[in-house]
Amino acid sequence: MEKKILLTDCPDAKGLIAKITNICYKHQLNITRNNEFVDRDHGRFFMRTELNGIFNDETLLADLDDALPQYTKRRLVPAGRKRIVILVTKEAHALGDILMKCFEGALDVEIAAVIGNYDTLGKLVEKFDIPFHHVSHEGLSRPEHEAELMKVVDSYRPDYLVLAKFMRILTPSFVAAYPHKIINIHHSFLPSFIGANPYRQAFERGVKMIGATAHFVTDDLDEGPIIEQSVIHVNHAMSANDMARAGRDVEKSVLSRALQLVLDERVFVYGNKTVVFK
Amino acid sequence: MEKKILLTDCPDAKGLIAKITNICYKHQLNITRNNEFVDRDHGRFFMRTELNGIFNDETLLADLDDALPQYTKRRLVPAGRKRIVILVTKEAHALGDILMKCFEGALDVEIAAVIGNYDTLGKLVEKFDIPFHHVSHEGLSRPEHEAELMKVVDSYRPDYLVLAKFMRILTPSFVAAYPHKIINIHHSFLPSFIGANPYRQAFERGVKMIGATAHFVTDDLDEGPIIEQSVIHVNHAMSANDMARAGRDVEKSVLSRALQLVLDERVFVYGNKTVVFK
Amino acid sequence: MEKKILLTDCPDAKGLIAKITNICYKHQLNITRNNEFVDRDHGRFFMRTELNGIFNDETLLADLDDALPQYTKRRLVPAGRKRIVILVTKEAHALGDILMKCFEGALDVEIAAVIGNYDTLGKLVEKFDIPFHHVSHEGLSRPEHEAELMKVVDSYRPDYLVLAKFMRILTPSFVAAYPHKIINIHHSFLPSFIGANPYRQAFERGVKMIGATAHFVTDDLDEGPIIEQSVIHVNHAMSANDMARAGRDVEKSVLSRALQLVLDERVFVYGNKTVVFK
Amino acid sequence: MEKKILLTDCPDAKGLIAKITNICYKHQLNITRNNEFVDRDHGRFFMRTELNGIFNDETLLADLDDALPQYTKRRLVPAGRKRIVILVTKEAHALGDILMKCFEGALDVEIAAVIGNYDTLGKLVEKFDIPFHHVSHEGLSRPEHEAELMKVVDSYRPDYLVLAKFMRILTPSFVAAYPHKIINIHHSFLPSFIGANPYRQAFERGVKMIGATAHFVTDDLDEGPIIEQSVIHVNHAMSANDMARAGRDVEKSVLSRALQLVLDERVFVYGNKTVVFK
Repeated sequence: MEKKILLTDCPDAKGLIAKITNICYKHQLNITRNNEFVDRDHGRFFMRTELNGIFNDETLLADLDDALPQYTKRRLVPAGRKRIVILVTKEAHALGDILMKCFEGALDVEIAAVIGNYDTLGKLVEKFDIPFHHVSHEGLSRPEHEAELMKVVDSYRPDYLVLAKFMRILTPSFVAAYPHKIINIHHSFLPSFIGANPYRQAFERGVKMIGATAHFVTDDLDEGPIIEQSVIHVNHAMSANDMARAGRDVEKSVLSRALQLVLDERVFVYGNKTVVFK
Repeated sequence: MEKKILLTDCPDAKGLIAKITNICYKHQLNITRNNEFVDRDHGRFFMRTELNGIFNDETLLADLDDALPQYTKRRLVPAGRKRIVILVTKEAHALGDILMKCFEGALDVEIAAVIGNYDTLGKLVEKFDIPFHHVSHEGLSRPEHEAELMKVVDSYRPDYLVLAKFMRILTPSFVAAYPHKIINIHHSFLPSFIGANPYRQAFERGVKMIGATAHFVTDDLDEGPIIEQSVIHVNHAMSANDMARAGRDVEKSVLSRALQLVLDERVFVYGNKTVVFK
Repeated sequence: MEKKILLTDCPDAKGLIAKITNICYKHQLNITRNNEFVDRDHGRFFMRTELNGIFNDETLLADLDDALPQYTKRRLVPAGRKRIVILVTKEAHALGDILMKCFEGALDVEIAAVIGNYDTLGKLVEKFDIPFHHVSHEGLSRPEHEAELMKVVDSYRPDYLVLAKFMRILTPSFVAAYPHKIINIHHSFLPSFIGANPYRQAFERGVKMIGATAHFVTDDLDEGPIIEQSVIHVNHAMSANDMARAGRDVEKSVLSRALQLVLDERVFVYGNKTVVFK
Repeated sequence: MEKKILLTDCPDAKGLIAKITNICYKHQLNITRNNEFVDRDHGRFFMRTELNGIFNDETLLADLDDALPQYTKRRLVPAGRKRIVILVTKEAHALGDILMKCFEGALDVEIAAVIGNYDTLGKLVEKFDIPFHHVSHEGLSRPEHEAELMKVVDSYRPDYLVLAKFMRILTPSFVAAYPHKIINIHHSFLPSFIGANPYRQAFERGVKMIGATAHFVTDDLDEGPIIEQSVIHVNHAMSANDMARAGRDVEKSVLSRALQLVLDERVFVYGNKTVVFK
């Protein structure tokens, strides 16, 4: 008996759930969990189906392709461990939370490697017996640096890249190499305070709450599809530094939750939005 | 074209989603929203299906009964306006929020009547052109008082009874007359601070958050199936009265949200718990 | 025995708390609550002191003026009931919450009048025996309309103006007439989604939380000093309308809380920020 | 120039703030932050004063003792680094968060040692170059085991003991040795679900939110003064294990925040409650 997840993303039509679940039934697969959503504005149907049984992937997918509309995107993925590469700069908290969660078994993922454009976090990573690569950007053009990064990344063939406070802007060509595969944590409640130093911006504006946003990286800085957000209260007595410190706990927990959702195949991207089946 | 909601609650089995959605498809009904949940501990399957189309209730239900396991509970309910009767004592906030939400169209329900064991809130209710009945408990035994209440309640044939800070304990025989039809708001984060004066209890214990709980009423005081809960932060500078005042906003919004969920047929009760499809 | 609140806002210096509390002690006033804050960036000191006793305002203030630095702003205000005028357009929820809270005694304020640029909410207001003025903007230039509004407002001599979903932009000259006296509720988590239709903007952006912001009105639209903010979670299944509906509860509770804070003299404005002593 | 914190806990009286701040002023100390609270029920005054300057502790305290009422408890503590010993069993998350926060400088405390009644977490602790002591309870009576623990604890002379998911009940004599010095994290929103397996209890009860509580340890299990609490939403689809997993993030952040508050000398204990100056 295996466990797999069927992900269907197609134009909406009558009877889609019946068709898909029928095919699963015919294949003697047990549906242990099912979620659907129809975006009426765009006439798009999304379904995530957890299946248990003995799989013949080829015939199952063929049956689905026969039954479903044109322009259907469907994937059948084993419900197993995925592999990530983490990119960092100097701040430890977001990386540290993922390292610790893997260590204690709370996050079931293989951290293939961590890459830093500084070597600051090398010692931390090595404590957990995970390879750390220092790929400095100094003296390199942005494309040169990214070429170096890609060489290391690709050597690990990760399912996802996680930017755990990686403080470099990525070029469209880097992003294009990993479409919907790069998850970033931004230290503000987007779309507030895009760009540099959001805590300073929040402090200057005098907001009463600050937040963090995990999103897929696209060509537009801090404009990618949002996966998860959270906030905390702040007050006038807090400096920009106090806010940054308090914000770290939000950043790390939002990034970890977003990563878990992605790893569990609960996130569909369409347009510049996400469907997240919690 | 009509809109109805099919609610299925049955022993778990393979192919249930396929069977149900097939039957809907055969009846040319469009599924606009669907939620399922399987409670593995008890082997129980729950499904809520929003349907659009032209309904032949009898044949649809007959087809379902043929296909589904024994001991299935299924209901097909029109997605329409329901009727409630509200029971109150002296406090206005929970009642007021429902009155205002109905007035502004935020809550689509018919408030058939409000019954108070004091007449304190009569004037408020009458502002909204809703009948108010003062059914005093004074000089009556509990069964006598409840008999009076039931007479008024039953004259309106409501779908649900809402206890909007009704500060009387109901007897098992009253509760039995409206099974899973009585919604109460308790002014604590249950199971903390069961019984009288929960804000005083919270103050004495020195908690840092207080809350409110909406639940179905059963024979056991404050022990019924929980529908919705929420909390807010409090601190040492707040008296028990300050907590009570701050708590009112939580109470009213929890009750309104719970009521909305019940009216939308999103809540299944099983054992002493609820399945809530949000 | 009276209760008054002393509000001090002055350049920071050594010994300010000692000086102020000494003077209060000399005047045999009991401090029942005290809050201070020093903004180190701007060298500014803020203090709110709740006092009990028999007051000689003139000598007390003279003593304070002798002791405190130049450029001190200080006020001694009776801890009593204030008077507000509420401006509305068509939406009932924010107004309704204030009406209900006054009715039930949860908010201790005199609602002198409600003014609407439509007459939609007149019936609601009259239920609570409060004067409603319909001051239509139709056929009038903005300055003409505001002149009409000011005539009505000023006839009531309110302490504060509350914009409870008043959907008109105010001109600088109107705002200048009531400096730091106009409280607005904006239906987004500012500075996200400034301007029109923030729920639509939030929906388009695909955020996972929405919020509301109460702020003082200044010349710059939605840019005034923030008093209070709050948020709730939303998801992909919610339309812009669903978000608007869910957001109403946040809007009304944020506005009510902000109003309470202002009425309790807990809010200092400096620059474009607030100090809020909770 | 030094920074110290003056903590005053005394019977309430007129002029206390004036007296204390006067003495500070006379000693040419600058108050950089000040908080007071009066518990009217018990006539008790609490004040926390952050001071900057050159200190003569002896004369300062003597002056205060002259001026303040009988039965005053006052402490003048350097605003510096404190030392803790952490007790653990097998779960890593609460310990891991403290280790990581110290490593990254987010929590300014010296972890003198970690003691486990199992050796499970030894490897994690050693990654951070902190001594780990395995003090097994096997084959020992409770008093014998605690005697062993105390031997190790006392050898480090810590300011506080942190129970980071230490799953043993402590005897009154152990607790008495460290009065108001032992901080525990309980994995429920107390007073709900006291005792063993609170996530299982929460699951059985069908609550819609779960939480965590940091408190000082007293003789009564899970009944000590609460320092900090937080909650998250859960739903019917979560098993007791899912809740436990989701709860870990709450537990660790509540414990870290409580620890920070205690280390910053922001927490007074009186009776079975705390005053927390945030």
